Amino acid sequence: MSKILHQLIVDLGERSYPIIIGQGLLGEVDLTPYVTGSQVMIVTNETVAPLYQDKARECFPGKCVDLVTLPDGEKYKDWQTLNLIFDGLLEKRHTRKTTLVALGGGVVGDMGGFAAACYQRGVPFIQIPTTLLSQVDSSVGGKTGINHPLGKNMIGAFHQPEAVLIDTNSLKTLPSREVSAGLAEVIKYGLIRDPGFLDWLEVNMGRLVALEDEAVGQAIFRSCTCKAEVVAKDEREGGLRAILNLGHTFGHAIETFSGYGNWLHGEAVGVGMIMAADLSAREGTITREERARVARLVSLAGLPERPPEGMTPDDFMNLMAVDKKNVDGQLRLVLLRAMGDAVVTADAAVENLSATLAGFCRH
Amino acid sequence: MSKILHQLIVDLGERSYPIIIGQGLLGEVDLTPYVTGSQVMIVTNETVAPLYQDKARECFPGKCVDLVTLPDGEKYKDWQTLNLIFDGLLEKRHTRKTTLVALGGGVVGDMGGFAAACYQRGVPFIQIPTTLLSQVDSSVGGKTGINHPLGKNMIGAFHQPEAVLIDTNSLKTLPSREVSAGLAEVIKYGLIRDPGFLDWLEVNMGRLVALEDEAVGQAIFRSCTCKAEVVAKDEREGGLRAILNLGHTFGHAIETFSGYGNWLHGEAVGVGMIMAADLSAREGTITREERARVARLVSLAGLPERPPEGMTPDDFMNLMAVDKKNVDGQLRLVLLRAMGDAVVTADAAVENLSATLAGFCRH
Repeated sequence: MSKILHQLIVDLGERSYPIIIGQGLLGEVDLTPYVTGSQVMIVTNETVAPLYQDKARECFPGKCVDLVTLPDGEKYKDWQTLNLIFDGLLEKRHTRKTTLVALGGGVVGDMGGFAAACYQRGVPFIQIPTTLLSQVDSSVGGKTGINHPLGKNMIGAFHQPEAVLIDTNSLKTLPSREVSAGLAEVIKYGLIRDPGFLDWLEVNMGRLVALEDEAVGQAIFRSCTCKAEVVAKDEREGGLRAILNLGHTFGHAIETFSGYGNWLHGEAVGVGMIMAADLSAREGTITREERARVARLVSLAGLPERPPEGMTPDDFMNLMAVDKKNVDGQLRLVLLRAMGDAVVTADAAVENLSATLAGFCRH
Repeated sequence: MSKILHQLIVDLGERSYPIIIGQGLLGEVDLTPYVTGSQVMIVTNETVAPLYQDKARECFPGKCVDLVTLPDGEKYKDWQTLNLIFDGLLEKRHTRKTTLVALGGGVVGDMGGFAAACYQRGVPFIQIPTTLLSQVDSSVGGKTGINHPLGKNMIGAFHQPEAVLIDTNSLKTLPSREVSAGLAEVIKYGLIRDPGFLDWLEVNMGRLVALEDEAVGQAIFRSCTCKAEVVAKDEREGGLRAILNLGHTFGHAIETFSGYGNWLHGEAVGVGMIMAADLSAREGTITREERARVARLVSLAGLPERPPEGMTPDDFMNLMAVDKKNVDGQLRLVLLRAMGDAVVTADAAVENLSATLAGFCRH
């Protein structure tokens, strides 16, 4: 039985699109209204394909549907793997009227979206995110891309989907570690913009970890709504949107240090948010108790609270210097001005940053 | 001594930009008004670098200018070579405020532009085209990209430059074969849109082949103006812009058949335009005499009039079928409705197309 719990429109003028959230939607919802041509290419990976490819095909009755299966994992978010999509499209003679469908987690979404942005200089695409992280993060924002050996997401494009379909049932097959990683981003929305949601999360974190459909649907809806509001105000990441990177500068350094794929993105962001809260507390904008509240929420979600063993303050400084959030060489960080209110700043005192790094790198 | 002969604005709303055309401009014109950050990365190739890199650097006084040198040739218009640009940008820690400068011919322009479109999801770029073909073709349109083993320009993006600087002096170091290749595109503008320019070309082709500055500047200006008018009406290639592909469907088949880089793009387009004129004459929209006028003009420019030896009608049909100008499997061609007036059509009689292919493949 399928049930649409929530629907929202990401408001981007002529690039606006709907996010449809519900239980059991995959295979039940007809997505052909979002397909202009006769061809559809589903991009998925070897883990997701056996679970959901048949149901995904059923969303496109009457269309000529092909499928390309990528290896699974962040370490394959590279050009060689991206090229498998182009190979498939060209071998099956997909024209510039084709529609790509990204069926899977964030890596599949980023790569499928980037392939759509570049194939014949741009074709439409639809997202069917199957992990919690991709549902609350990649669903909104139009960011697509691949990694480079010298940095994450360094090569990519802004490319908005025609529609996003989120089936909460797909979370039932997700390892609990990945559910936790997704919850890191959910917590982030509360921290940067929505104190009420933060309170709700502290009460309901147990239901989310247990994947209770109603709570999960609600958390996804509020997360997507929050991100959509931010992105609508700043589609190309000129200013406000940068607050979405709370925890990400520290987090990317952790991911790069540990090698792509060893730490999950959400795990690194979880630690990064605690580090950002710690630095905010040292800067005096939040209290030590509030900093502890952030750490507790991250911990309740089943996430680590410290960077990997052996990572030093110097590792952080070197890896953060190349992060693309830095403008003209200045290290910009997202900090908390209050609980539920984030700000981008290059003004954090160097000694406070050093103290935060030293505190977290002590094992 | 430098002399600005012509300047035009490509009118694309907030993406509008100037094309500055003149003699001796390289090293003389200050391009820093088109640079927002402090970093500049010049992308060039091993042929152009020793000739013009010093003068190009002088266009950016006070900026931090780096340079990446690519191998020269269409066969390097691939991901591996594109990645050299990303390597250079990341090794030199270029931020998302950097400006890329494409200094060279069409391959450098396409790759430098595509790198700019993708680096950190998009940074600004400036074009300094040094070949006639790139001056009259890549200067306008915002098309960037790379080749795939299964097709030319299959991976790319639309990305408009901040400014284009055209120094006619740079043509003095160009092999005459490449001058001729550029003239193919110049002829194309007359054929598709400007009968008066066509008459002018028949009178002045000798001056162009001899690279007389005033004539060359005039031809570049009229070509860019013509293309800018078409692109302004159809930035994303929805309709009208397709007439710019006169001769290109046949031409791409020739380039693919002969292997990238063996035939110059303009040489293939020259033959393709004669083939399109031949098919138009068979369709009855132009006369046999007008078809001969097209062939004569192409010949006067020093270009071949026939496809490579050994290429068969079947080769053409197979290679044209995968060409991206085809919508939903239909073979669409640009034909002449009259001299100076082109139209896109899928209605050419199959027997006429067969007769044209047979006529040109008889050796």
